[in-house]
Amino acid sequence: MEFKEILTNRRAINFFDPAQNVTEDQLREIIQNAAKAPSSFNLQPWKLIVLRDASKKAELQKLAFDQPKVSEAPVVLIMLADREGWKEGNTTLEANFSNSMQPEQRDWFISTTSALYGGSEAASQAFANKNTGLFAMSIMYAASDLGLHTHPMDGFDHEGVRKAFDIPEQYWIPMLLCVGHKKKDVKIHPKGWRQSYEEMVLNTL
Amino acid sequence: MEFKEILTNRRAINFFDPAQNVTEDQLREIIQNAAKAPSSFNLQPWKLIVLRDASKKAELQKLAFDQPKVSEAPVVLIMLADREGWKEGNTTLEANFSNSMQPEQRDWFISTTSALYGGSEAASQAFANKNTGLFAMSIMYAASDLGLHTHPMDGFDHEGVRKAFDIPEQYWIPMLLCVGHKKKDVKIHPKGWRQSYEEMVLNTL
Repeated sequence: MEFKEILTNRRAINFFDPAQNVTEDQLREIIQNAAKAPSSFNLQPWKLIVLRDASKKAELQKLAFDQPKVSEAPVVLIMLADREGWKEGNTTLEANFSNSMQPEQRDWFISTTSALYGGSEAASQAFANKNTGLFAMSIMYAASDLGLHTHPMDGFDHEGVRKAFDIPEQYWIPMLLCVGHKKKDVKIHPKGWRQSYEEMVLNTL
Repeated sequence: MEFKEILTNRRAINFFDPAQNVTEDQLREIIQNAAKAPSSFNLQPWKLIVLRDASKKAELQKLAFDQPKVSEAPVVLIMLADREGWKEGNTTLEANFSNSMQPEQRDWFISTTSALYGGSEAASQAFANKNTGLFAMSIMYAASDLGLHTHPMDGFDHEGVRKAFDIPEQYWIPMLLCVGHKKKDVKIHPKGWRQSYEEMVLNTL
């Protein structure tokens, strides 16, 4: 699909058709396309939990202001942002060295990522969440490209979801992402207000 | 352009042609298209500083491991993530009420965003950075859609950039984003290693 069409079509959909599935092949294609997103030092500090089971989705719905779309969407992704993705021993960081980085880069690499992201909780949190934001946006566009719809949600009980789904402390949960088909005959409201260019640009130098 | 082509074409380019400009119209189109990205409660907690001036870019380059692409790219964006974008009185939040939200939603809205994002530094930092990640990813795709190239950078002295460009404490600086044209005859290496679907999915339920 043309990117301009995706920009117009992509909306946060509130009403999913529970009768229409997202196939395993579709989900893999979306995730693998989205994973082409860039990340800090290619560290890809993102993981997913994939929910399809009705009782698991119902459990998540209760922790998300009881919004029915969590159950109605055939797939709900719990997005995870790895706050330790810059650390020596982290499995994704180490996989970079097994797959494409050279061993002689290692000392420089680990001292640089530790200095940039390991100096404070604020730095680790920013690192994990901005990168998972790049990935999440790519998932939404990649789903639109297949004619599917999404809804990013962050109205949920963060620590409740952590507990219910056994999510280790190293991950922040930036959002839940519903993926599915729009319910037929649902009218979509016009896109909400957006900042103008002038409102977004604080300064031009 | 087809989204699949953008997915393949979009690469973090190290060598920009300083002789080829990004016009004001192109930049506006990119930013306005990217601003269609979703955000938490439509709060759009993102701002930009746009650099075109050679001496300003040189100043920024010194704070970014002296990487020449900062000067070579005709436009460099300093991306800003608003950690107070959920707070009553924040100009972008208030603009939502002037433009599309109803006054009777206000009390519920402000108490909800304060509870979700104002409870801890970790929550505010995640809020600002994940949303600015959604916007930044959209800028990169929107630039690709116009045949331009980008490079997201976060190897820079965060507090040094804050000081040099008078950036208020309420903003985190998740990345610098170079925008321009690829230098002719530069060979682009194959895309780096990416996690497989199985490596990304911690659990399927």
